Amino acid sequence: MSQPSSSSSNAAESIAIAARRAFEDSQLVDPSERDVALQAIRKTLEQARDQVLAANKQDMEASSGITAHHAGEKLASEGKLSASLVSRLDLTRPGKYDAMLQGITDVANLPVPTGQVTFAKELGEGLELQRVTCPVGVLLVIFEARPEVVVNIAALAIKSGNAAILKGGKESINTATLLSSLIAKALSTTSIPPTFIQSVSTRSEISSLLAQDRYIDLVMPRGGNELVTNIKNNTRIPVMGHADGICAVYLDESAVEEKAIRIAVESKIDYMAACNSAETLLIHESLLSTLWPKVAAALIEKKVSLRCDPSILAAISSVPGASEYASAAVESDWTSEYLGPTFAVRQVSGVQEAIKHINSHSSHHTDSIVTESEAAMSAWCRGLDSANCFVNASTRFSDGTRYGLGTEVGISTGKTHARGPVGLEGLVIYKYMMRSKADKGSIIGDHEKGGKGYTHKDLPKGKPMF
Amino acid sequence: MSQPSSSSSNAAESIAIAARRAFEDSQLVDPSERDVALQAIRKTLEQARDQVLAANKQDMEASSGITAHHAGEKLASEGKLSASLVSRLDLTRPGKYDAMLQGITDVANLPVPTGQVTFAKELGEGLELQRVTCPVGVLLVIFEARPEVVVNIAALAIKSGNAAILKGGKESINTATLLSSLIAKALSTTSIPPTFIQSVSTRSEISSLLAQDRYIDLVMPRGGNELVTNIKNNTRIPVMGHADGICAVYLDESAVEEKAIRIAVESKIDYMAACNSAETLLIHESLLSTLWPKVAAALIEKKVSLRCDPSILAAISSVPGASEYASAAVESDWTSEYLGPTFAVRQVSGVQEAIKHINSHSSHHTDSIVTESEAAMSAWCRGLDSANCFVNASTRFSDGTRYGLGTEVGISTGKTHARGPVGLEGLVIYKYMMRSKADKGSIIGDHEKGGKGYTHKDLPKGKPMF
Repeated sequence: MSQPSSSSSNAAESIAIAARRAFEDSQLVDPSERDVALQAIRKTLEQARDQVLAANKQDMEASSGITAHHAGEKLASEGKLSASLVSRLDLTRPGKYDAMLQGITDVANLPVPTGQVTFAKELGEGLELQRVTCPVGVLLVIFEARPEVVVNIAALAIKSGNAAILKGGKESINTATLLSSLIAKALSTTSIPPTFIQSVSTRSEISSLLAQDRYIDLVMPRGGNELVTNIKNNTRIPVMGHADGICAVYLDESAVEEKAIRIAVESKIDYMAACNSAETLLIHESLLSTLWPKVAAALIEKKVSLRCDPSILAAISSVPGASEYASAAVESDWTSEYLGPTFAVRQVSGVQEAIKHINSHSSHHTDSIVTESEAAMSAWCRGLDSANCFVNASTRFSDGTRYGLGTEVGISTGKTHARGPVGLEGLVIYKYMMRSKADKGSIIGDHEKGGKGYTHKDLPKGKPMF
Repeated sequence: MSQPSSSSSNAAESIAIAARRAFEDSQLVDPSERDVALQAIRKTLEQARDQVLAANKQDMEASSGITAHHAGEKLASEGKLSASLVSRLDLTRPGKYDAMLQGITDVANLPVPTGQVTFAKELGEGLELQRVTCPVGVLLVIFEARPEVVVNIAALAIKSGNAAILKGGKESINTATLLSSLIAKALSTTSIPPTFIQSVSTRSEISSLLAQDRYIDLVMPRGGNELVTNIKNNTRIPVMGHADGICAVYLDESAVEEKAIRIAVESKIDYMAACNSAETLLIHESLLSTLWPKVAAALIEKKVSLRCDPSILAAISSVPGASEYASAAVESDWTSEYLGPTFAVRQVSGVQEAIKHINSHSSHHTDSIVTESEAAMSAWCRGLDSANCFVNASTRFSDGTRYGLGTEVGISTGKTHARGPVGLEGLVIYKYMMRSKADKGSIIGDHEKGGKGYTHKDLPKGKPMF
């Protein structure tokens, strides 16, 4: 990470303070005003369509050169930006701009995640306690070069009451900067402060912002392991990372052929650049001469390369195409995120060994077992230390929209705060509110040290007291 | 933080790997076995009472020297260990050992925080999704020199299914090491692996453990800002910090005298070394010649020093004792955690200015307003960015046991994962479990791209599917 200069430090502090003030000032605004603000943003972006598409054209032209330069490199080395960088940058594709606008309305229509009472107790007569969901505060979100993500993240932040500082991939800079200023312009006509959503454009600003732990509450990097690790190494702010997806499919002893083939094939090839695609295939040792060659044939037919352990490789020597597509695995295959048409394949003695392999080698993201055994299913879902433990289902289901969360902020590979596909709930925390209606107010001396004790009676959760 | 040597790095990695394996191996053990393990620990500690008290005596004797050496220093410089270090170390005080044993049974009797279904949906016919609470994994807990905390944290970790590595204050090393080995001995007779709870005794081991982000999931430092900041600077592992408590009481325009005096006095003097004691007192400008002198008199009577802004100081010039106890505040007073009989006192123009002052200067811990105004209460609870927002109640209520959480892991000053008093719920996260009962298993192609769509039907939460 580049070292911040003192001028970028000052600028970063100003941005962080402005975000914090905007967050604090917005706390007394009724949550319904956030939806009004979202509609104002939609309207402003509708009117500025030509201007935004012109900025987008600049980015596209600048990036076409970049992409040609990288064309000879391997997909994986470009990470999840993938070879389709220009396509991702492109807001002019039919329907894409409208979909971005509709996304704002969709977020506005989601239930408000704040102001939910999750715990309510009477501590003593006239003394009531509630735990109420509230925004985390100020978010720093770092994401890839997809300009519509600026709008999507801004909408999610506003809906959940969090101020946000955004940094998109450098290839989308013109579009992202313009979208961000249009959002600020729209907010200036509403009860939400215009500095509620801000944008920065350089890496050195990020470095400086990572030092602003007094003002920024949560960093959300969307990208690979390298980005997430680099950020964790450089900040005291909590990080909700979206890192690698090294997912596995395990074909258990009792796996049914049709399920096995459908799930292994889709988990691998449906969308290979996605983090919820499978990279590892584990095969029960009893299946080497029965199911495995059929699964291998189906994968080879889809031009999937198989990196196999010795017995797995030997078992498919007579499968057509094996000489071209199957080869010996090396140790690094078990921890590779290929993001492409390659599967690492290994024999295991049963569900226990499969779990051990995954717990030691995976990224704890999403893993699926194909089995008819209830005992194996139970061991799988309880024993795997993965965010998403699936039975007889494709790993590709691991997604906030598919889960019915309404939206997706990202897929967290962390194990605190929010794990797996994250919806708006992942952007809130809670505070405790306590009110005494006792005649003299309440002190602990009324309840302890010979006082009248606590009642600790559960109350209906209902609405927040304030 | 001292630099780890390569031998302590290797030792730390071995400890972290052992903890991870113990955690993973325990996942298939029925949660009721955790309670069996807790009872085994209680029994072992009952039998080893004399041995533990002998080790404790060694620690006490070693620390008496240390304490004498520090006796001339100010309380605050010793942080929350406080002048009563020896008293905290002492397990021989009447009832203390029994209370420690009873604490184990109390934790065993709490509801199991894992295996709770918090979200359940049918995604399509025969395809069900559940979000189920589960342990975070491996905890690294760093705490003060109170030997009974070893037992308390071990009990909480076991109950919640988390493996733990413990590091207590160096003054309690003999007692803590023995307690930890007795816990391992007790666990070796149960279904929970003996390495589920491990102990380390040196700072360099901590430095090395902080690098083990592959195996350790959460660091919980209990101590002041310095410890928490130091740890955040030296690890990629998420940190649930228990840092300073700079809490405020605000007497609003409509504050009732009796409530104001009771709450201001108790919040300050009940237990001054506690993080939920108040350090700042804000006074509405209309109260300078009415309520404030009475509150000041009550505080001075309790020998509380008042560090006042100019108008606050002028208003109590004729209060008896003011010349001795009241003096002019300096800027650092607004951000001081005195942990002693000192109050920083400031005039504000109303609830908005009080909120602004607290949001900018406090540690976002616990703040209380004394008021009869519903509007002021509402602004307070919504506008304050504090974990605990109280109305007409002492800040001292901010505590997991007083809240009825059953126990307290600590009070988190962070804003992600868990905030404020943290019970067993703060030691769990969740995983998603998905099961397809469809004849061919489930792939997203069945539901998207011309497939039959998703139903996204809410299901009763009930029991976990596995």
